[in-house]
Amino acid sequence: MGWGDLGVFGQPSKETPNLDAMAAQGMLLPNFYTANPLCSPSRAALLTGRLPVRNGFYTTNARARNAYTPQEIVGGISKDEILLPRMLKEKGYVSKIVGKWHLGHRPQYLPLENGFDEWFGAPNCHFGPYNNSNRPNIPVYNNTEMVGRYYEEFMIDRKTGESNLTQIYLMEGLDFIERQYQAQRPFFLYWAPDATHAPVYASKHFLGKSQRGRYGDAVMELDYSVGKILSWLKLLSIDQNTLVFFTSDNGAALTSGPHESGSNGPFLCGKETTFEGGMREPAIAWWPGRIKEGTVNFQLANVMDLYVTSLALAGISPPSNRTLDGIDLTPVLLKQLHTHPNRPIFYYRGDELMAVRLGQYKAHYWTWSNSWQEFKKGINFCPGQEVPGVTTHDQKEHTMQPLIFHLGQDPGEKFPISVLTKEYQDVLSRISPIVDQHKKSLVPGVPQLNMCDVAVMNWAPAGCEKLGKCLKVPKSQPWKCDWPH
Amino acid sequence: MGWGDLGVFGQPSKETPNLDAMAAQGMLLPNFYTANPLCSPSRAALLTGRLPVRNGFYTTNARARNAYTPQEIVGGISKDEILLPRMLKEKGYVSKIVGKWHLGHRPQYLPLENGFDEWFGAPNCHFGPYNNSNRPNIPVYNNTEMVGRYYEEFMIDRKTGESNLTQIYLMEGLDFIERQYQAQRPFFLYWAPDATHAPVYASKHFLGKSQRGRYGDAVMELDYSVGKILSWLKLLSIDQNTLVFFTSDNGAALTSGPHESGSNGPFLCGKETTFEGGMREPAIAWWPGRIKEGTVNFQLANVMDLYVTSLALAGISPPSNRTLDGIDLTPVLLKQLHTHPNRPIFYYRGDELMAVRLGQYKAHYWTWSNSWQEFKKGINFCPGQEVPGVTTHDQKEHTMQPLIFHLGQDPGEKFPISVLTKEYQDVLSRISPIVDQHKKSLVPGVPQLNMCDVAVMNWAPAGCEKLGKCLKVPKSQPWKCDWPH
Ligand SMILES: [Ca+2]
Ligand SMILES: [Ca+2]
Repeated sequence: MGWGDLGVFGQPSKETPNLDAMAAQGMLLPNFYTANPLCSPSRAALLTGRLPVRNGFYTTNARARNAYTPQEIVGGISKDEILLPRMLKEKGYVSKIVGKWHLGHRPQYLPLENGFDEWFGAPNCHFGPYNNSNRPNIPVYNNTEMVGRYYEEFMIDRKTGESNLTQIYLMEGLDFIERQYQAQRPFFLYWAPDATHAPVYASKHFLGKSQRGRYGDAVMELDYSVGKILSWLKLLSIDQNTLVFFTSDNGAALTSGPHESGSNGPFLCGKETTFEGGMREPAIAWWPGRIKEGTVNFQLANVMDLYVTSLALAGISPPSNRTLDGIDLTPVLLKQLHTHPNRPIFYYRGDELMAVRLGQYKAHYWTWSNSWQEFKKGINFCPGQEVPGVTTHDQKEHTMQPLIFHLGQDPGEKFPISVLTKEYQDVLSRISPIVDQHKKSLVPGVPQLNMCDVAVMNWAPAGCEKLGKCLKVPKSQPWKCDWPH
Repeated sequence: MGWGDLGVFGQPSKETPNLDAMAAQGMLLPNFYTANPLCSPSRAALLTGRLPVRNGFYTTNARARNAYTPQEIVGGISKDEILLPRMLKEKGYVSKIVGKWHLGHRPQYLPLENGFDEWFGAPNCHFGPYNNSNRPNIPVYNNTEMVGRYYEEFMIDRKTGESNLTQIYLMEGLDFIERQYQAQRPFFLYWAPDATHAPVYASKHFLGKSQRGRYGDAVMELDYSVGKILSWLKLLSIDQNTLVFFTSDNGAALTSGPHESGSNGPFLCGKETTFEGGMREPAIAWWPGRIKEGTVNFQLANVMDLYVTSLALAGISPPSNRTLDGIDLTPVLLKQLHTHPNRPIFYYRGDELMAVRLGQYKAHYWTWSNSWQEFKKGINFCPGQEVPGVTTHDQKEHTMQPLIFHLGQDPGEKFPISVLTKEYQDVLSRISPIVDQHKKSLVPGVPQLNMCDVAVMNWAPAGCEKLGKCLKVPKSQPWKCDWPH
């Protein structure tokens, strides 16, 4: 989902009354970022508090390539990483993930092996295949065992876009909250529906309701669901004791055409890119009685901060034996401070530091939308947008003289500041040491997204026997995955 | 100012707390349009309730050219037009314009000749000249006489952008309101500041305050001023008896670079064009006790509706001897209805009907950003944006097969609907008769913006003698004005 997909962030059809109300009752963070313009690495960063280049969610098969966890991926989240639910156990938190996991689908990588107590959802994304001939349909798990597969027990009608998955996910979330409330246990719910990902789906009640087409229908259903969760917390009178944070894992994909594309508002390009459209995210923090209502905070922040902030709020010391990339947002959320004015945002694509934001300035060290080869095939990450020398189809290096934009004056990254100005030189002299320090001290994790193999696919997930849904596992034939962009 | 310049419409720096609050206390109209992507014709349409092609605010010197009222223009608003303040007199309304007039600067065209009772402001835009050598500096009028000139008595510091004009305009507005309140007279205030027009200015208190640079400073000062006006109405306890409508005359100009450009949010291109960025406007209606707070209405509406609506609210019959292009928005504003689902929006550029919107669909009959000649000189009305076949640099005709977009699904006008679809044929069959009927019945007014002459400039405006500010009028040398885009 994109920054511009919420009414409160300027979506012209204003179809997110619950999220808009959540912002009115809480804090809006217009400068909030993901850690990567793609799902798996972004989610890995959220749950580890570390950049994908540290936690291993990247590839070295080629420079600056986005990589994720399709079915043929061999790797997943490393056992060396300490995920947020594991940390939260220290203070007795019970954790559940509802929806898409995306940190690896082989048994050792699944949520319950990594600190979560419960899971209802799928290990991979819900797009194809739509039958099991060459690749198995994605399994849906209830905790440690599959309970069916997408397009089989869990229908998504490819023609109408109808699916009740978001409603199922909503019920799973509400039920989890209620059980923890009854048991008076502290809890962490990671509610991660994927309805806005192509093929976009919504349940019958929402289909056709939006001015925006099917994508808007899905957004409306997500908005409705968030509203239900918030009112559930109020009904149980635990709203004043619960921080709710809404965000997305990457900017809206713009390649899917008008029916299935979201909006990145005034920002450049979308998912897969390190322009603002790919990495600036909608973000709302809600905590009645603790977060002042109707506030806006311009602190530069990102998903990794949620790891550190959650630990701070739970009174748990963060792991001391590793670099964390998040900061504690407690003063921002609870005291409306802007405590980290010099906190940089790093924009990575795979193993390459593409850009850095400091204050209002963003310096691009590399620019790339996608390859000429893909672009000529019609794959366009910036449809209708073209900024000469910026949305390049070659991996263009600017490391000696980065392209610098003032994002306050030029949120669309259209007017690079002239290198001849004092402003440029001043900014560069402030950003350069930060980049040098970052690169010098960076110890990349072992890349987990390099190898692929048909044998690792979801042929026979745990629980398949009971259901009679085990498929024959083909012979292992590993290869280096190809990541085109 | 552009659709995307308000926080409530998605401006990332969220610097319009007063306008955002105005929306929260009133009604937001996300589908509100101007009548022309340029100032003079747009303002003429607002005050006459008629399209520029009817009220004469266009040129026939070349096809589809934007024209306005610079100093060398001979024409102005025709005596045959009945402006809103003239109509309102029937019920005893006192009317004042504060700020830019732009309907002609020769004596017969000025506000007090056209129904206004009071005026404080300038007949033309505040950009150059900056001395009186080749062209006189623009006079500032208090009612019928000039009281000084821009860059002389009324300073705009071209280097710092400092000017207290908006504050002067605010005081003029508040004073007018108070006097009518004291006299218990109904009133119409047309408050038309021009601070966001290049060269953008703001007063000292606001300079440097915005995250967006000088343009943002000016927006913040306008926002502050609107807030002051609203709280003034409340203080005088006439807020429940006063409709306040906020909008702009055209989309943000994008040619001025990052320091002086506004934002059109997710829309295509800007001022001068008939894409959404040029003509969709921010719009907020406010009337405590009458307009329900926090409402959003998607009725397609435009500035000409304000003429008809104002008359309806004042209980005055509209003139019956002419075609009006506005509709009565009373049911929309007061009853939250969407009463005119089949009401079209016409997008004109000069004398050419470029596009028509009906419901969610917009059909482009002609596309043009600007000429190759201008574009190659660096004049770009769509910087960073390029939609092949849409943002054309030739005047491209599509009258036989219009380009059709679904603005709900594709607000950025990037994905024309395939002519081979049933959707396209259905839409075309609904729009075509509307266009045919419109063209057949249209009687264009006498074009007022064809002739130019240096002799008509503001050399010796009324009142110049008293001030010793009369300049020598050169010999008349009329020519056909050149309108490049
Ligand atoms: Ca995603
Ligand atoms: Ca204007």
